[in-house]
Amino acid sequence: MTISMYEASVPVFSARLKALSNVLATAEQNALERKIDPQVFLTFRLAPDMYALTRQVQIATDHAKGAPSRLARREVPKYEDNEASFADLQARIAKTTTHLETFSTADFDGSDDRMIELKLGGRETTLSGMQYLLHLAMPNFYFHITTAYDILRHNGVPLGKATFIGAR
Amino acid sequence: MTISMYEASVPVFSARLKALSNVLATAEQNALERKIDPQVFLTFRLAPDMYALTRQVQIATDHAKGAPSRLARREVPKYEDNEASFADLQARIAKTTTHLETFSTADFDGSDDRMIELKLGGRETTLSGMQYLLHLAMPNFYFHITTAYDILRHNGVPLGKATFIGAR
Repeated sequence: MTISMYEASVPVFSARLKALSNVLATAEQNALERKIDPQVFLTFRLAPDMYALTRQVQIATDHAKGAPSRLARREVPKYEDNEASFADLQARIAKTTTHLETFSTADFDGSDDRMIELKLGGRETTLSGMQYLLHLAMPNFYFHITTAYDILRHNGVPLGKATFIGAR
Repeated sequence: MTISMYEASVPVFSARLKALSNVLATAEQNALERKIDPQVFLTFRLAPDMYALTRQVQIATDHAKGAPSRLARREVPKYEDNEASFADLQARIAKTTTHLETFSTADFDGSDDRMIELKLGGRETTLSGMQYLLHLAMPNFYFHITTAYDILRHNGVPLGKATFIGAR
């Protein structure tokens, strides 16, 4: 009746990032076919005070590298946030996936009730590992990968939800 | 190092639905203030072949009522999908939340490796309870609540991600 903190995090991030990579590959190909400057997609926002596509992908990967690292008491890898092309975003996703591959189930021993300290909205906050994963990292991660997908769908990129989920 | 299938599902659905209810309440209020017919928001789609807001909320609640029911071997409640106003959507969310409150941790005994039979894209599919929850129900649920939020942000409703997450 239980699942490991590893199963609830690493394979979920990995599978969704693989799907995100496919979503972005479809978008890049579509820009080429429609003779649209890829920057149009990369800098598009659904609202003026929402992040553009590139930033959505950056934040999604931040959660995917950050959550397992914090839960396993490892240092969170620092990325420079200087991605400027689809190829750069693919490289960032690949780097994140490679980082995820370094974790094993044992790295998460005791992480469900270990207290995790975080800065949220400028304030120091403490959450159990389980609360952090299920109620902060995952909702944020899903928010940013979905919004990346929504930006591209809004721009006419031919995608289906199966690609988002990673079913194909 | 483990979390229960209950913790990984019921409180996650409940917390996010509460946040979705707040998002929709903000949208309804905003329509009133801006003298916009609420139907404009309810029927808005980010792309012509994506679902409108009302359907996004319907499908999100479908996953929130369906996943725990299937995992606990209970019948999935049937809803009529006839919501036509913000009040109707709020009632649907409330009904789903009340259904979620009927579950306890013990209902999920053995659900992680119990095989769940589903129809996916017209084909019969079998997944373990864990795979179903983490790799099908949750990604779909998050997809639809995020897209509901994105539709409203795109329409100028003043929302922040903290409202989506349910942090406030």
